[in-house]
Amino acid sequence: MRMYDIIKKKRDGFELTEEEIRFVVQGYTRGEIPDYQMAAFLMAVYFRGMNERETYDLTIAMLDSGDRLDLSSLSGIKLDKHSSGGVGDKISFVVLPIAASFGIKIAKMSGRGLGHTGGTIDKLESIPGMKTSLDKEQFLKVVEEVGFSIVSQTENLVPADKKIYALRDATATVENLSLIASSIVSKKLAAGADAIVFDVKVGSGAFMKDLDQARKLSSLMLDIVKRNGKRAKAVISNMDQPLGKMVGNALEVLEAIECLKGQGPRDVMELSYTLVKEMLDLAGVKVSFDDIEEKVRSGEPLKRFKKFVEMHGGDPSIVDEPTRLPISRDVVEVRAQREGYVAKIDAERIGIACVLLGGGRSKKEDTIDHSVGVELLKKVSDPVAVNDVLARVYYSKKSDLESALKIVESAYVLSEQAVEPLPIVLEVIE
Amino acid sequence: MRMYDIIKKKRDGFELTEEEIRFVVQGYTRGEIPDYQMAAFLMAVYFRGMNERETYDLTIAMLDSGDRLDLSSLSGIKLDKHSSGGVGDKISFVVLPIAASFGIKIAKMSGRGLGHTGGTIDKLESIPGMKTSLDKEQFLKVVEEVGFSIVSQTENLVPADKKIYALRDATATVENLSLIASSIVSKKLAAGADAIVFDVKVGSGAFMKDLDQARKLSSLMLDIVKRNGKRAKAVISNMDQPLGKMVGNALEVLEAIECLKGQGPRDVMELSYTLVKEMLDLAGVKVSFDDIEEKVRSGEPLKRFKKFVEMHGGDPSIVDEPTRLPISRDVVEVRAQREGYVAKIDAERIGIACVLLGGGRSKKEDTIDHSVGVELLKKVSDPVAVNDVLARVYYSKKSDLESALKIVESAYVLSEQAVEPLPIVLEVIE
Repeated sequence: MRMYDIIKKKRDGFELTEEEIRFVVQGYTRGEIPDYQMAAFLMAVYFRGMNERETYDLTIAMLDSGDRLDLSSLSGIKLDKHSSGGVGDKISFVVLPIAASFGIKIAKMSGRGLGHTGGTIDKLESIPGMKTSLDKEQFLKVVEEVGFSIVSQTENLVPADKKIYALRDATATVENLSLIASSIVSKKLAAGADAIVFDVKVGSGAFMKDLDQARKLSSLMLDIVKRNGKRAKAVISNMDQPLGKMVGNALEVLEAIECLKGQGPRDVMELSYTLVKEMLDLAGVKVSFDDIEEKVRSGEPLKRFKKFVEMHGGDPSIVDEPTRLPISRDVVEVRAQREGYVAKIDAERIGIACVLLGGGRSKKEDTIDHSVGVELLKKVSDPVAVNDVLARVYYSKKSDLESALKIVESAYVLSEQAVEPLPIVLEVIE
Repeated sequence: MRMYDIIKKKRDGFELTEEEIRFVVQGYTRGEIPDYQMAAFLMAVYFRGMNERETYDLTIAMLDSGDRLDLSSLSGIKLDKHSSGGVGDKISFVVLPIAASFGIKIAKMSGRGLGHTGGTIDKLESIPGMKTSLDKEQFLKVVEEVGFSIVSQTENLVPADKKIYALRDATATVENLSLIASSIVSKKLAAGADAIVFDVKVGSGAFMKDLDQARKLSSLMLDIVKRNGKRAKAVISNMDQPLGKMVGNALEVLEAIECLKGQGPRDVMELSYTLVKEMLDLAGVKVSFDDIEEKVRSGEPLKRFKKFVEMHGGDPSIVDEPTRLPISRDVVEVRAQREGYVAKIDAERIGIACVLLGGGRSKKEDTIDHSVGVELLKKVSDPVAVNDVLARVYYSKKSDLESALKIVESAYVLSEQAVEPLPIVLEVIE
C-alpha cells in the first residue's frame, strides 16, 4: 500500500477501504507517512468528504492509536457529555453534579481553551488548589465517590488525533464534518462511557455557523457511536450570544455555583436541565424538569460539586463564599449610548475580548489569567435605557483594557424595535 | 501575510493576488514555508484551479526564483521548442538542425527521462563521448556556430519548479493545468528565447489523455508566453501510438539520423516538418513543406547535426556509420499470432517495456542502458499476416527480457477489419 495512491484515490472521489484508512492513521501516527503527504490527503478529504462508513473507520483507527480508559470497575451506568465549544460555556459544572445526583457516573476528560472559546480545565483551575491531573486510580475513586469527575486529557488519549489536529490547524483543513466528528468521537470513545450526549453549539460564537451543518455533524457523530455499539443523543443549542452572563474563568465557576443553587440565568438552567434529562434518558431513567428542579433544591448537586473540588485538592469554601474565587476587583462598565432593545451580542467578540484581557490563549503556550472576564448584564431582548450598564469588564492589566472595551462595545447591537428572546435548545437528535 | 490564510483563500475558491502568489513561491523556495503547508496549498489549487492571471503570476514568480539565460549575444532570432513528452519522441534531433539551416538559433535545455517517457538528454548521451553539460560560453558558442545546441538543465534553472515539482510528485498534485503550465513555461522563459513552439502530445502514451485537455493546456501556455511579451504557438500531436519506429536511447538517435537523411518514418517526418514550419513562422520566415524537404535533401541539416555532435565531444562518425551507436545485438522478435490489421499499439506499455529493459528510469537514481529498446516494424493500420514480425526487442540482460516481451506483445491489438492510419498533427493553435 502506498500513501501516494491513497491520496490520489480520495482526490479522485473514491471511497477508501478500512485497510487504507488504517494505513494512513497508523503510518502518520508512527511518523512513517510525512506531514506533507498527510496535509495533501486532508485537503483531498476536505474537498471530497468521507461517507459514514469511512468516517467510522477513521474514528476507530484513531481510537486504536492510544489507550482506552477502562471504566468497568465503576458501579452503575457510565455517561459522558461533550460540548462542541462556545463562549461562556460552564454547563459541565452544572450538568455533571445534577446528573450524578440521579445515580449515574460521569468520568469526564476535558481540554484546555484555544482561541475565542474557553476550556473547561482552565476554568476549573481558577479554583484555588484545584488539581486537574489525577492518576487513573484517583480519578476513578473520585467518580465512584462523588458520581463524577473532570480531569485534563492524558497525553496518550488518541495520539493520532493530537498529531492530525495540529496539522489540520496549520493547513486550513479543520472545517470538514468527517474530520471534526472523528476527532471528537475518537476521544469520547477512548474515555470509555456507555453512552454520550453531545451538546452541539450553533451560531455566531460557535464552530458550526448554521443549523444544517450542526444537524449533519450531530447525525454523523451519533452514527459513529451507534456503529460502535453505544448509545448517544445530540442537543443542538444556540450560540448566537454567550451562554449565561459570565465569560471568563473564575467568573464562570461563580455562575455555575449560582446555577447549582438554583439561581442561574434562564439559558444556562434550561440547557443544563435538557442535557441532564437526555443523559438520564440514555441511562434508562425518565425524569421531568420538575424532578430535576427538585433535585437542585435538595442541595445534593451542590454538595457533590463541593466534594469534587475537595477531592481534587481545591478549596471547597468557594462554594459557600464565592468571593474567595480569584475575581479581579478592577472593573469598568460599558454603558448604553442610546435606548432600545439588545438585538445581538456577538459571542465571538466577547470571547476575543476575554482572550485580550488575558483570560484565554491565542497561542498554545500562553498562560491564563483566571481573574479577568466579561459580565453581560443585558442579554438579547432586554430593554435598555440611555446610560444603562450593558456589561462589566474585569481586567488586571490596564494595557489590555482599551482594546477589550472597544470589542465588548462593538459586540452589542441595539434595536429600536422590541426583540424576541433567543431560544436556547434548538433540537434534540437521537 | 500568512500562508494559512492563503491556503484557506484558495481552498474557498477565491482568486489570489500577485503578492500572495509571490509570497508562496518565494517562501517555499527559501524554506520558510514548510512542505506540509505547500502540499495543502497545491491540493487546494488542484481542486479550485487558478485563472489565467494567477497562472501567469505563478509562472513569473517561479521564473524569478533562479537565473535566466541571456541570449542577447547571439545573432538572429532565438526560438525554442518544448515537448510535453511521449514515447519514441526524437523530434528535437530532427527539428533543430533543419530549423537552424533556415537561419534561426535554438539554445535548448532539456531534461532527463523518468517513468515511461524517455529524456532527450539520456538519448543524446547514447552517442559515444557526447557531453550534455557545457558551461554557458561553450553552449552559446555551439549555438552561434551550428545554429542550435541541446544541454541538460542547469541546477539553478527555476529552483522553485524543482522543489514544487518534487512535492507535487509525492502528493498527487501533478495533474492540474495551471501547475503543469507554470512548470513548463517558467523553464522555457528562463531559457531566454524570443518565441516558443510547444509540441503538446495527446493520447494513451501522453500526459494529456484527451484533446480537450491538450487544447486547454496549449491555450494556457500561449497566454502566459504572450503576457510575457513573447510569441508562441502550440502543435497538438497524436501519442496514441509511439512516434516513429524506434523506442530506446541509441535506437532513437539512429532513427533521427535517418530522418535527417530524408528517410524517416512518415509520422516523424510530418510532425518535424510541421514544427519547423511553425517555428520559422514565428521567426517571420514563411516556408512550405517542399521548401523544408529541399533543405533536408541539400544535406545541410545532417551536417549541422554532425557538427553539433562534434562540438559536444561526441563521435561524429555515428552520422555516416550509425552502427557505431551502442545498439545491442541481442534481439528477440515478437511475431503476430494471427492475421489482421494493427488497431492499436499502447505507447505507455512500449515505454514501460523500455524501462524494464534498462533503457529508462523508474527512480531518479537509476542508470540508463542506452543500447536497449523496441523497434516497431508494424504500426497502426498496417496489415499483418500470421507469423509476421511485429516488433524487435533489443535487450542486454536476459533477466529483463521475459516481462518486457510480454508487455510489448500485450501492447499490440490486432483487428479483423481494416484500420485507418492515425493522424499525427491534430491541431495548430496560435
